[in-house]
Amino acid sequence: MKQALKATSCGIHAAASVVGKMEKLGPLGGVFDLHGDDDRFGQKTWEKAEAEMQRLALNTALAKGKLHEQDLDAILAGDLLNQCVGAAYGLKDFNVPYFGLYGACSTAAEGLILASLLTTNGYFERAAAVASSHNCTAERQYRSPLEYGAQRTPTAQWTVTGAGAFIVGGEESAMALIRGVLPGTVIEKGIKDAANMGAAMAPAAADTLLRFFGESNTVPEDFDLIVTGDLGYEGGAILCDLMAIEGVDIRKVYNDCGMMIYSRDTQDTHAGGSGCGCSAAVLASYLLPKLATGALRRVLFLGTGAMMSPQIIQQGEYIPAIAHLVCLTSKEEKEWKLC
Amino acid sequence: MKQALKATSCGIHAAASVVGKMEKLGPLGGVFDLHGDDDRFGQKTWEKAEAEMQRLALNTALAKGKLHEQDLDAILAGDLLNQCVGAAYGLKDFNVPYFGLYGACSTAAEGLILASLLTTNGYFERAAAVASSHNCTAERQYRSPLEYGAQRTPTAQWTVTGAGAFIVGGEESAMALIRGVLPGTVIEKGIKDAANMGAAMAPAAADTLLRFFGESNTVPEDFDLIVTGDLGYEGGAILCDLMAIEGVDIRKVYNDCGMMIYSRDTQDTHAGGSGCGCSAAVLASYLLPKLATGALRRVLFLGTGAMMSPQIIQQGEYIPAIAHLVCLTSKEEKEWKLC
Repeated sequence: MKQALKATSCGIHAAASVVGKMEKLGPLGGVFDLHGDDDRFGQKTWEKAEAEMQRLALNTALAKGKLHEQDLDAILAGDLLNQCVGAAYGLKDFNVPYFGLYGACSTAAEGLILASLLTTNGYFERAAAVASSHNCTAERQYRSPLEYGAQRTPTAQWTVTGAGAFIVGGEESAMALIRGVLPGTVIEKGIKDAANMGAAMAPAAADTLLRFFGESNTVPEDFDLIVTGDLGYEGGAILCDLMAIEGVDIRKVYNDCGMMIYSRDTQDTHAGGSGCGCSAAVLASYLLPKLATGALRRVLFLGTGAMMSPQIIQQGEYIPAIAHLVCLTSKEEKEWKLC
Repeated sequence: MKQALKATSCGIHAAASVVGKMEKLGPLGGVFDLHGDDDRFGQKTWEKAEAEMQRLALNTALAKGKLHEQDLDAILAGDLLNQCVGAAYGLKDFNVPYFGLYGACSTAAEGLILASLLTTNGYFERAAAVASSHNCTAERQYRSPLEYGAQRTPTAQWTVTGAGAFIVGGEESAMALIRGVLPGTVIEKGIKDAANMGAAMAPAAADTLLRFFGESNTVPEDFDLIVTGDLGYEGGAILCDLMAIEGVDIRKVYNDCGMMIYSRDTQDTHAGGSGCGCSAAVLASYLLPKLATGALRRVLFLGTGAMMSPQIIQQGEYIPAIAHLVCLTSKEEKEWKLC
């Protein structure tokens, strides 16, 4: 396989997040830009609420970056809903070229990779990446409507009600630098349990991470944080084990957005958070500000996605997964060479 | 809004198509690379059959281009299925970086645009764009299972059972050149009728086409063919009217992949063909060979997509649409300057 790691010279100018009530009550509740106490965001249906979260996230990111829609060359966006209607409807009023993405929970990272490659090479001056998920839309689409009160297994993750938007552009005036990107390949290791997506996605994260260390000649100790979004407790532990088997110990610097967004003591989400909105909101409002202040200096952000549909699982298929990697640094690390 | 037209210097090295029985029996039946007489392609479900068509299309395009998967830097692919499982499952065994796209029926054009921008700027040497649709998966997902024998309205289009794959790379040894691309914006003009997607998509095609002529200072007469995929007879007529209102007459050079793929006399598909696989298969096996021989010299290819879901339509929403434009020329036109 060809070298997949691409060096980039761009940055994230502004980012914003919108979350629901449960996320607001979690340990990161204080950092998110907007939240809704009833998860409806003034809309009559959950799907429209999710679309509204995408609109709010992008508008807030533009406002924080002192930018207008006409400053954008493109929007790259997606979500988990059938036909990605969260992005299509939420962003339809922006008069900006639109690229619809489907990367399941890796969508934020997929959008950041494409935006980075297209701004670094000068085709775009600025591009936005937007992703969202909503617990109520995801539960009824993938599992069963919340009203049924279906019991969840210990390995099940809790779909985050959240959206994140990122404005990618040149390095100057960026809050954090995007130094390189490594898109994932589709990995399927025989997991059929749609209530254990962490196990389905962990091998994809390991594949991408091992290729990254190999192609960049770096080691886990070169980074302050290696963060996946979203393997949860189950998948995160599997990833650490898979890496250890390969002789790469990431435990000291590893964390997962799905483990960070909820309190394990006071919020029983079983295996942690998931959904496109989880890694998007945590990166936008918790990790990027730390990179902006230099509290974090070198971060590997891996968006992980499980790309099955309920129908194809009913047809006996396994779960294909993907992990897209984005290497972020603070501006203090500008002299550090990734590759 | 910023200039959206981007000049590119790349080409399509190879392309391939896979279609079903009805498409094989149509006026273009002789040009497609592969076809299946039972539309199952050896699979037990329609969804798996569609995934198999994507695999066959990419493998055939690679074989025609005398390339292997390790020659690809990326695959950009999508389809109409929930969670885009046609692409994710059909292409999961290719060990190549994967970007999932959702552009509804504009997916082939969306993939070609991103592949063109990323190969022109040198990030990728070669990238594949793949898209598919299947009549049986689309009908039961969007409308009702074929077994119900639901009656179709005159404006309804027939979802093509087909897949197309394109290998984009440098200009040398290309069968056709990609000279410029113009990504579409999401356009929604108040159409709610999911059985009249041509009407929903025509305004998006007009918006993209008018911006293209404005930004490139070209006129319809500069092109041998302006082809949409897929507005069908209904949407195609609306597009021509919308353009005429703006003082731009495209009638002399206009056609639509959905009008070309079926015989109106012997195959009653009502308003013509649709689905990601329609424009992908027609471009891959009918239009590109004509560009390769010089029978066509300058072509504007517009992928048009309607990005609603059945659920959001049931919730009373309108249909947002998009049209992505790719400007193709034969190698004889290398000296012609687009912009």
